[in-house]
Amino acid sequence: MYHYGVGKTATSVDLALHPPPDGAVLFRWLYHEIRSAILEGRLRRGARLPATRELAKRYRISRGTVISTFDQLQAEGYLEARVGAGTRVNTHLPEDLLPAKSGVSAAGARKSPRPKLSKYGLRLTPAPDVRVPPPRPFRLLTPAFDAFPLSLWSQIASRRLRGVTRQLLADENPRGYRPLREAVSAYLGSARGVRCTWDQVIILAGIQQALDLTARIVLDPGDEVWLEDPCAFLVADMFRAMGARVVPVPVDDQGLNVAEGRRRSRRAKLAYVTPAHQFPLGVSMSASRRLALLDWARQSGALIFEDDYDSEYRYAGRPLPSLQGIDTTGSVILAGSFSKVLFPSLRLGYLVASGELVEKFAAGRMLMDRHSSLIDQAILCDFITAGHFGSHIRRMRELYAGRLAVLCDAVRRKLRGALEIGETQAGMHTVGWLAVGLDAGAVAKAAMERNVEAIPLRRFCLKARHPEGLLLGFASVDDNELRRGVDRLAAALEDCSRRSSNEPGASLRGSRSG
Amino acid sequence: MYHYGVGKTATSVDLALHPPPDGAVLFRWLYHEIRSAILEGRLRRGARLPATRELAKRYRISRGTVISTFDQLQAEGYLEARVGAGTRVNTHLPEDLLPAKSGVSAAGARKSPRPKLSKYGLRLTPAPDVRVPPPRPFRLLTPAFDAFPLSLWSQIASRRLRGVTRQLLADENPRGYRPLREAVSAYLGSARGVRCTWDQVIILAGIQQALDLTARIVLDPGDEVWLEDPCAFLVADMFRAMGARVVPVPVDDQGLNVAEGRRRSRRAKLAYVTPAHQFPLGVSMSASRRLALLDWARQSGALIFEDDYDSEYRYAGRPLPSLQGIDTTGSVILAGSFSKVLFPSLRLGYLVASGELVEKFAAGRMLMDRHSSLIDQAILCDFITAGHFGSHIRRMRELYAGRLAVLCDAVRRKLRGALEIGETQAGMHTVGWLAVGLDAGAVAKAAMERNVEAIPLRRFCLKARHPEGLLLGFASVDDNELRRGVDRLAAALEDCSRRSSNEPGASLRGSRSG
Repeated sequence: MYHYGVGKTATSVDLALHPPPDGAVLFRWLYHEIRSAILEGRLRRGARLPATRELAKRYRISRGTVISTFDQLQAEGYLEARVGAGTRVNTHLPEDLLPAKSGVSAAGARKSPRPKLSKYGLRLTPAPDVRVPPPRPFRLLTPAFDAFPLSLWSQIASRRLRGVTRQLLADENPRGYRPLREAVSAYLGSARGVRCTWDQVIILAGIQQALDLTARIVLDPGDEVWLEDPCAFLVADMFRAMGARVVPVPVDDQGLNVAEGRRRSRRAKLAYVTPAHQFPLGVSMSASRRLALLDWARQSGALIFEDDYDSEYRYAGRPLPSLQGIDTTGSVILAGSFSKVLFPSLRLGYLVASGELVEKFAAGRMLMDRHSSLIDQAILCDFITAGHFGSHIRRMRELYAGRLAVLCDAVRRKLRGALEIGETQAGMHTVGWLAVGLDAGAVAKAAMERNVEAIPLRRFCLKARHPEGLLLGFASVDDNELRRGVDRLAAALEDCSRRSSNEPGASLRGSRSG
Repeated sequence: MYHYGVGKTATSVDLALHPPPDGAVLFRWLYHEIRSAILEGRLRRGARLPATRELAKRYRISRGTVISTFDQLQAEGYLEARVGAGTRVNTHLPEDLLPAKSGVSAAGARKSPRPKLSKYGLRLTPAPDVRVPPPRPFRLLTPAFDAFPLSLWSQIASRRLRGVTRQLLADENPRGYRPLREAVSAYLGSARGVRCTWDQVIILAGIQQALDLTARIVLDPGDEVWLEDPCAFLVADMFRAMGARVVPVPVDDQGLNVAEGRRRSRRAKLAYVTPAHQFPLGVSMSASRRLALLDWARQSGALIFEDDYDSEYRYAGRPLPSLQGIDTTGSVILAGSFSKVLFPSLRLGYLVASGELVEKFAAGRMLMDRHSSLIDQAILCDFITAGHFGSHIRRMRELYAGRLAVLCDAVRRKLRGALEIGETQAGMHTVGWLAVGLDAGAVAKAAMERNVEAIPLRRFCLKARHPEGLLLGFASVDDNELRRGVDRLAAALEDCSRRSSNEPGASLRGSRSG
């Protein structure tokens, strides 16, 4: 087998130079090429250049020319040579020789292109390039990292990598790794009441991809889609970017109001719903609404996208099987994610569909990005079939029930009269309803100043009006952090009332009444 | 910390039952629910049911009812109870009770939906659900699995998993993991002559995703795109599925014929090219054609998609820097893949863009599938920054040069007069030109019967006419397998000539002349 270097020092960089123009003096050409590679930052400080012999051979020039060039560049301070370490770009190159550090990006510094974009391209709204900070109270849609059995996962991953087969490295099936599809189908059958065989399961990068793929396969620009109102940002953004006509359908304590949906749009081809635990309101869709929604789909020939995002967590009452499980006409596309149960950066999820849709999804996936990493799929499959996934969900269900209780208790004790949490039976977040007169935007801002995330409910509303509320995730941090979070939220609420009494003109109550 | 079960036997399944109708007899309801879950295959043989106490609590029924139901189902042979192992679905359930095995899928058996699809959805052509067999001669676009340092990769992966930070688990940036973007930018700068800063690099699932994203951001249905002719299947399929007007532009020994492209379409908004090593013909785009292509893009405001898919491998002559490196107007989007250098199931690649395009790509990625697995990105980053990636490429360059020589030698000795390989200086495949009179389709079919992959060149042609040729990948299998592959190809060629002389009507030469 091959010997691999043990560190940066062991290997020289590959070096691709633009060819010398006809009749060029080779010394001058080589000098210029290497020098500009250094000045433009393509050759980094400390980077080791190929051996003179190798360069000479590759570019069919004499070794003497290469040596003279290196000597010259060394004399000028661009390169340095150390015995046994070859020739490198000078690690102490003066700052002023080097290009502006990115941040002021070369992308901006170069003559900026004004490419002609598509309608989709023009509709995309760039988001700032920021790192997501580590979990803090009350992050949404984020599991408990501290409780994820990383070393167990790592063991399973290592075992799988050591025993990896050529088949596993070579296969590429846009439907996913068959044993994982079988495991997912078995899990969904028992835990979510989903009626499907393994070949109806497609492994994807997550719910967002399932939704994007569904939208592309079902909707043309101008087609109507029902969205729950309120609704997750990325869902509404995605449909709008692709040119679909978003029809907001209000949500009440029984879930999506199907009758209102019918009034607002009879021609919708797709409905997006979160029946298990509405995002963001947290209600579960009632049995009669489920039947009404299926009725509508059957009559109108529309499809239903069931986003089953945190259905694993139900703390009271009986488990609620999926909408898909009571559908008899193949109108429901169900999608779920492993990233929200295990860890977000995993990027594995699934969808379940019927009939010809399965093959359309597979064909679309192939053209979009082919398939998900097979090794990641195999590791996850091992984790599930060994029983760890089931155990993990049960542990997390207990853990999150405890965290929810801690949150409710702390809110009752510290925020009485200012913020109230309704009965919460499921999921990884709840809504904190603010007392009349408090402005969720102002509270959220003050909370963020204290390193607490509490997103105003109204930011998720398309047209709907709701009392002022804050979304509070309770899964991602432990009991103590949750309690500290509530303390800091209480302080933020005080900041707000202080500000609004001190500067009535600029206050947020003021900003509404004029 | 939590204790996790050690195997399948340790945990019971989660069980979601459809709620009892009002006034239902609870025993009958529970009996029916569990029995149909078993009969429909949602509860598998051997699956362990939740404890009676837990079920009773969850569904708010008496434990006595649960016990009677279990007893009844056990008496009928659906369940079995073992001391200390709880109640399970009978592992010896008679075959005839169980649902038809998939294959005849329930997807088909259920009332098949006829959903209204979008134009994109209608254009998608389903592909058969087959496993890709392990590498065999002369598989295309597939690296040498046998030479990939799996144990080193596995060590690096384990180290990264053991030391994983909450930041790494939590972050989600559609642009990718910053240290990996820096490493890619450094690598591309030196090895490919790419001029970019790290913030112009976006990590994606691969070249196919880069292309799909580019197409969505740049093209509306009906817009024209230049494709090299011949061209990879998935590229043409992708553009057609999204409704773009594909303009085939012929390729000669200098690469894409820019003048011919201008004649065929002046309004194209995008050109797709493989300048380093044209797929599938294998030619490198000449310097004058590169300049002509950039000129066209500048004048017409079009963008160029540079697919740099196997540019790492150049066996003779000087390295060819990327087209992106000589572009001064930001017209080139460069994309590359790690899957073709390391292993196909990895699903990591990159694109490099300029100006506002970078942010458009990031915004589009977020809506498509958010981002790539951060842990996978971090492992790859460790592999690169420790120097292993550079070493691996150099090893593979030597290895593939050797395999190419073995292939050429064997073809010269065994296939003289029937198949000829031109001068090959780069990449992971070459074209074998067939002697006049031989039909590539017939030879490919006969080769496949002997477990040898040799795809006819004409299958990649959009409109172009070329002499009959077969594509021969030489990277994925070792010298001995390559030699055996040539032997089997020789036998296949004999099969063909025997068939064509025996059955002139059905022969492939016959099928042309009538």
